Amino acid sequence: MTTTATTTKQFIISEQLLEHWQGHRNLTRRVIEMFPEKELFEFTIGGMRPFAKMAVELISMGGPALKGIVNKKEDAFDDETFNPKTKEELLKKWDEETGVINQYFSEITEERFQETFNLFGQYEFPVYQNILYFIDNEIHHRAQGFVYLRALGINPPFFWERF
Amino acid sequence: MTTTATTTKQFIISEQLLEHWQGHRNLTRRVIEMFPEKELFEFTIGGMRPFAKMAVELISMGGPALKGIVNKKEDAFDDETFNPKTKEELLKKWDEETGVINQYFSEITEERFQETFNLFGQYEFPVYQNILYFIDNEIHHRAQGFVYLRALGINPPFFWERF
Repeated sequence: MTTTATTTKQFIISEQLLEHWQGHRNLTRRVIEMFPEKELFEFTIGGMRPFAKMAVELISMGGPALKGIVNKKEDAFDDETFNPKTKEELLKKWDEETGVINQYFSEITEERFQETFNLFGQYEFPVYQNILYFIDNEIHHRAQGFVYLRALGINPPFFWERF
Repeated sequence: MTTTATTTKQFIISEQLLEHWQGHRNLTRRVIEMFPEKELFEFTIGGMRPFAKMAVELISMGGPALKGIVNKKEDAFDDETFNPKTKEELLKKWDEETGVINQYFSEITEERFQETFNLFGQYEFPVYQNILYFIDNEIHHRAQGFVYLRALGINPPFFWERF
């Protein structure tokens, strides 16, 4: 593929984006770890969900979405089936999804990133936009976890510490 | 420039990244607008900064950083000089920075995104990583603003509504 620097400029390659995402996932993992067991599943502010529920949303999104993109399957989003009762169970699944994300992400071709796909049979956007959404959504919910930790008197990890 | 699809895959071009960023900036602007005047400058949770202070950080980062990258100037980060006293003043500056970001971002060449630059004389990373940081940092602090709004009994805007 030939790109013309005067008309379009490459911002990043897919490997850089994956590394960036996995860096964020490492940080989110540390935030999960820092919650006391009980507060992880129960503490909330302003009627929002406990952080464990947000983490389950993230687990239910990234890997399953990439699988759907690669296999062109539009199965519905499901964050009900995986319903962990302990931090250990949540972290175990988190770590399993790390491999799932690495595997399926690497199978997406350059052309696919620009193609529209009806993710989860519901979100019809270019694949690159859906992938950016997974990362943005993770940063967004993790930041809410940061506020929960602060409100609990616990200092969250540094935002820029990823690996 | 020729890229070989078998070894590296382009994830996005710079115009797509800029549109993505400005979409996030629109959402952050709406969050600033939704705060009551007094709470924007005073409300906090867990010893964190009021949302106005976080917004000033964002304003002090994106545009000035891009200027520094384009002009290869390593002036220190400064979020003290601009010290707005009203929401109107904050939003006016926010809107001015929209144009600054569009202008300077477009002047960064494809090669520069991959080059290391000592941003603000302090953050020595590839330019693409620094730019992703500005966006991530904005999502992170805006999400804290979402929690503040919820704690104030105000429903924040939809996370996916950007333009």
